[in-house]
Amino acid sequence: MSKSELQFKGYALVDPKNFTDLQVKTFKPKPFEENDVEIAITHCGVCGSDVHTLKQGWGESKLPLVVGHEIVGQAVRVGSAVKGIKAGDRVGVGAQIWSCMQCRQCRDGYENYCPKQVDTYNAEYPDGTVSQGGYSTAIRAHQQFVFPIPDAMESKHAASMLCGGLTVFSPLRTNGCGPGKKVGIVGIGGLGHYAVLFAKALGAEVWAFTHSPDKMEDAKKLGADHVVDTNDKDFAQPLANKLDLIVTTMDATPSLPIKDFLGMLYVHGRLVNVGIPDADKPLPQLHAFDLVPNGAYIGGSHVGSKEECLAMLKLAAEKGVKPWIEELPMKDVARAIKGVGENNVRYRYVLTQDLA
Amino acid sequence: MSKSELQFKGYALVDPKNFTDLQVKTFKPKPFEENDVEIAITHCGVCGSDVHTLKQGWGESKLPLVVGHEIVGQAVRVGSAVKGIKAGDRVGVGAQIWSCMQCRQCRDGYENYCPKQVDTYNAEYPDGTVSQGGYSTAIRAHQQFVFPIPDAMESKHAASMLCGGLTVFSPLRTNGCGPGKKVGIVGIGGLGHYAVLFAKALGAEVWAFTHSPDKMEDAKKLGADHVVDTNDKDFAQPLANKLDLIVTTMDATPSLPIKDFLGMLYVHGRLVNVGIPDADKPLPQLHAFDLVPNGAYIGGSHVGSKEECLAMLKLAAEKGVKPWIEELPMKDVARAIKGVGENNVRYRYVLTQDLA
Repeated sequence: MSKSELQFKGYALVDPKNFTDLQVKTFKPKPFEENDVEIAITHCGVCGSDVHTLKQGWGESKLPLVVGHEIVGQAVRVGSAVKGIKAGDRVGVGAQIWSCMQCRQCRDGYENYCPKQVDTYNAEYPDGTVSQGGYSTAIRAHQQFVFPIPDAMESKHAASMLCGGLTVFSPLRTNGCGPGKKVGIVGIGGLGHYAVLFAKALGAEVWAFTHSPDKMEDAKKLGADHVVDTNDKDFAQPLANKLDLIVTTMDATPSLPIKDFLGMLYVHGRLVNVGIPDADKPLPQLHAFDLVPNGAYIGGSHVGSKEECLAMLKLAAEKGVKPWIEELPMKDVARAIKGVGENNVRYRYVLTQDLA
Repeated sequence: MSKSELQFKGYALVDPKNFTDLQVKTFKPKPFEENDVEIAITHCGVCGSDVHTLKQGWGESKLPLVVGHEIVGQAVRVGSAVKGIKAGDRVGVGAQIWSCMQCRQCRDGYENYCPKQVDTYNAEYPDGTVSQGGYSTAIRAHQQFVFPIPDAMESKHAASMLCGGLTVFSPLRTNGCGPGKKVGIVGIGGLGHYAVLFAKALGAEVWAFTHSPDKMEDAKKLGADHVVDTNDKDFAQPLANKLDLIVTTMDATPSLPIKDFLGMLYVHGRLVNVGIPDADKPLPQLHAFDLVPNGAYIGGSHVGSKEECLAMLKLAAEKGVKPWIEELPMKDVARAIKGVGENNVRYRYVLTQDLA
């Protein structure tokens, strides 16, 4: 419970025009409270959200700003009210860092839908402190958003799971992905590769959809039972009314052939979209008719809860789920940002600590 | 089982330019099969679908065409394979008249989602016979689409339930409408008035949303616990994250404030749209972001199954659910068509037989 000697500094955006040129800056963490855990960061994944934020695609960001929300490290200071985590434990933090813990959502275990939630970076705590992310030495987080990492997992494999993995695990589990279910995964990128891995680990029969011919072999290796090239004009027809659930992981722009995918759903099947493009790219326009023939649903999802994250980590440890990653020292973050922005990553970058 | 002496004739559209000027025409019914029931029609409701079809709003219709798919009458001829219905029984037919009874959907009790389904009018049976609706003397239907009417219900009350009622009852029941649930009904018209009646009969707390000030009092009388005037600029805010389910019953055009309604849903809540406008009026355009804050779903629905229809009729008989209707002789159908088209009906017209 003693005070730690951690310094808080990270690779920060200072000029959005040069969004790959991050500068080392110190920052002020939120005040330490007795529900908080202070973490010395060892690894941080690079998420598509980081790139959208750095490029100001989701709106103007605060400056200077340290992004990164796929964090693993060592608990260094643990508040007196924290349960189940002690100093020295290996722990992680994902895309959310705080919620009110009092609203209906928080009481129901849906803290990831708390209307007052604070994102891990580029958000303000109620006291006005700006949250700063994990391309940095350290982070303070409320215990609800700190996840013990199972011993069986390497930190480099756990890191990007905490946003990229959880973002697809949550809608898969919520919508009954499991043995006997037929599940489609659209887009084989950072999120999609996790979605194939977890849909298989949960026991479903998996169809992977990609428009990148060079990813078809990868999708097989990831475990997909069927791989469909969406460049084929008639790719949808053989699957009409066959699938129980589809998770779309590519940024859902007007060019997403969403009607083709809706037509693949069995009665009351669901298409959950987790790919969030820049603000100027809406979903394809639909007519009320498009949801009638199978009574289908289109939904969204927001990362996941602690309960879901722990279930995901347990499943990953038990089944040996390992993401496909490339490690880089944090100082090489520009390469990772470019790789994600240009869709060249196979399939997640993980930055390793070089500032502490 | 003997042959009946029924004549098949009805008020038919012959010239789409004069879509209220229906002419009495005879027509050829499908060949009688041993699963069929032949019904002498006494009542037929006037549905918004009839008007969309007569006005060619959903595409060009077949001609001549008898519309009407809220039919009640007396079983006159009953095929040898029919179970639970005998000649003389009071029975009804809704918006669907046939399905293949062999596909996964039919086997699962989702015959209303059979890909080969035949609508009650303006559709072709596999043998090429054009289906003709209930503004007529008689209809032949497969037993799966013939519903015994409970003794406790009047025919005039049962008729419009078989499409208008079932169209909202199905999504309410499918999505758990019942005690302890908070349910919003958008639009107080033919469908919406049924949705308020059934949501209350199922035991939910009901919010009715209307932009017609003169319908607010009606919504209260129908049983809504709360009535919200959507002309109020801030009508949505007090209900943020409060409702479990919303059924939108007005034709879902680009002007529907769908984001306001989505924001009212609790985590993973559902908005089911059953209002189908003309083909040139799409849903309001959404961004993937719009479904994220509460992990909401937007869905569609297609009328209902026999199992659902029987459950609806049982509930209506037990709870004394009575639609608000106006009766007219069939020859006055033009008045009903105009009233529905101009949204002046309070809340369903039911035509009574005058040809047989």
